[in-house]
Amino acid sequence: MTIAPVTPERDIAASGPYALAVDAMGGDKAPDIVLAGLDLAADRHPKARILLIGDEELLRLALSRHPKAARICDIRHSAASIPMEMKPTSALRVRGSSMRMAMEAVAAGEALGVVSAGNSGAMLALAKIIVKALPGISRPAMVAVQPSARGDVVMLDLGANIACDARNLVEFAIMGEAFAQAALGLPAPTIGLLNVGSEELKGDDRLREASERLRSSALSSQFHGFVEGHDITAGTTDVIVTDGFTGNIALKTGEGALKLAFGLLRRVFETNVLTRLGYLLVKPGLERMREWIDPRRYNGALFVGLNGIVVKSHGGADGESFASAVDVAMDAVTHHLNDRIRDRLTQLGMGAVDPVAPVSVRATPEPVS
Amino acid sequence: MTIAPVTPERDIAASGPYALAVDAMGGDKAPDIVLAGLDLAADRHPKARILLIGDEELLRLALSRHPKAARICDIRHSAASIPMEMKPTSALRVRGSSMRMAMEAVAAGEALGVVSAGNSGAMLALAKIIVKALPGISRPAMVAVQPSARGDVVMLDLGANIACDARNLVEFAIMGEAFAQAALGLPAPTIGLLNVGSEELKGDDRLREASERLRSSALSSQFHGFVEGHDITAGTTDVIVTDGFTGNIALKTGEGALKLAFGLLRRVFETNVLTRLGYLLVKPGLERMREWIDPRRYNGALFVGLNGIVVKSHGGADGESFASAVDVAMDAVTHHLNDRIRDRLTQLGMGAVDPVAPVSVRATPEPVS
Repeated sequence: MTIAPVTPERDIAASGPYALAVDAMGGDKAPDIVLAGLDLAADRHPKARILLIGDEELLRLALSRHPKAARICDIRHSAASIPMEMKPTSALRVRGSSMRMAMEAVAAGEALGVVSAGNSGAMLALAKIIVKALPGISRPAMVAVQPSARGDVVMLDLGANIACDARNLVEFAIMGEAFAQAALGLPAPTIGLLNVGSEELKGDDRLREASERLRSSALSSQFHGFVEGHDITAGTTDVIVTDGFTGNIALKTGEGALKLAFGLLRRVFETNVLTRLGYLLVKPGLERMREWIDPRRYNGALFVGLNGIVVKSHGGADGESFASAVDVAMDAVTHHLNDRIRDRLTQLGMGAVDPVAPVSVRATPEPVS
Repeated sequence: MTIAPVTPERDIAASGPYALAVDAMGGDKAPDIVLAGLDLAADRHPKARILLIGDEELLRLALSRHPKAARICDIRHSAASIPMEMKPTSALRVRGSSMRMAMEAVAAGEALGVVSAGNSGAMLALAKIIVKALPGISRPAMVAVQPSARGDVVMLDLGANIACDARNLVEFAIMGEAFAQAALGLPAPTIGLLNVGSEELKGDDRLREASERLRSSALSSQFHGFVEGHDITAGTTDVIVTDGFTGNIALKTGEGALKLAFGLLRRVFETNVLTRLGYLLVKPGLERMREWIDPRRYNGALFVGLNGIVVKSHGGADGESFASAVDVAMDAVTHHLNDRIRDRLTQLGMGAVDPVAPVSVRATPEPVS
């Protein structure tokens, strides 16, 4: 694989297109959290240029209160926005929505990526129709970074595809590997296929076929085989591949269990005067720990496998979370995530397969963030 | 529903059959951990009579070192045992194995239940063939109790059935509800169907159909609808229903996340002299917390939906874990779990459906514990 070196952000800024098109109207508290997030992003990516799409009057006022964000943003007016609870099929019919215009900016080559905290089902549907899937990818997927005992791990699909076949899982492995290179800086990330046991006979035909295909591919030296639920937080592999149903449930189950642990811990510390003193003694370490596994740090699920970088921020995000989503997008842009995926597909002889395969919107039953 | 009152254990002891047949040869450290577990069980269930099945000479020697266990156990010799890694199809052909003989004791009415720490695939296959499914149940499932922020919750299927249809999920809901009554003492447990979102449109046809059937059934007032991964540890419902693939992965992902939290916590406490002092101050509370979410306390997955109580202890269990598995079995026996399920099936008009439906062994791809 010959991957272009990382592009410094100033070169992206100088090279014409905006780094990102940002949907200013998506999310429960838009545009406030978007602007708060872009203030932080302006510090972290001072050379990035952002195309900020939404109600012009509202945004002009908002930017006047966010001078840092104002420095990196240009406003583009959109007259409509997509409500958080609208069905994807209805969202596709809304003309001139901020989310749609952000996607169109990427499709037109005006921006390299999109970030939105809006309706995730609508976002995936619009991305598939406007930004379109990469040649060789039949199903774009949702990928994100998770904490583990051995550092960050990458997991996909997190909910874009409820039902998946062996080919989809192989594509997820390819995209997950490229994402782990770009996001975690690993030269040769290891890959595990999530199953109910690690033995070769476990699971169903779909999993066994995907495993065989990966084992006989150019990725074989990085393919670890089947992994189980506890391997996610153990960090057994750098990439965890699964279908969108299981991935979504595993993601939320893991988050829930960590929340339970912290809740119980709080009760322990609040027992009496001595335990409160104990809390004060370990507070700095505990706060580092909490920060490390803070879901906000991991905010920003990327829809991978599209002709552009498309990042979904959690709908109930705050400024810090939105800034993390911008980081995810900027990482993917500067590390040429899509070039890596394209090269890998070519290497595996999959780049030209089914180049005109339609990307079905209907087949994706209500993806979730 | 007219459920017989709880049968005191002394009545079980007096009424003829053994309370349990125990496979003494199953598990990584059999029969030692089995005997250690039965010592504890003898204290907790002093009136229970146990049929202990395994190598007679070995067991006689072992019981001489475990006088408490010896008081409640009768030995029955078996010449064979099933290795932990043997395939279920091969295990079915082993004649006179300790596991098979334990199942046969239940089928013959000599014992009300079985406990084994042996090969779980073999156990499910033997249970289906020898103990057989309850009339009206097409797929027995694996059920267990999990910790949550609002107390214990029941989850199934944990791996007995990789692929499930709507009918299977409805059966799981019925069996899970009865199990929650018996194991948690709840008069009207609430039920949630695990999905990628709580809205009615989420998931696939199978989930939407199961949801509709539960909503229009006699269980409707207890049916909460769809729940998500984080609802498991939040304790949103008393029972979580899902297919065996997702359930197995959710179970292990949750356990893994709790393990990660404790691992990180250990590092925080070991930072320096002050944090070590902090640890000493909160140690009693922390140990209670650890004990409460200790997987050993939750050891003992029950194969529910069979004509007898069949409980699987973890293969790598210790004596404490094995005793927990015995507790699970004794709870199900004394609380008439199967009578509850039969009554509920009758009430829902499902008891007589397909009474001769074959219970496929082949259709169960390698269940896991």
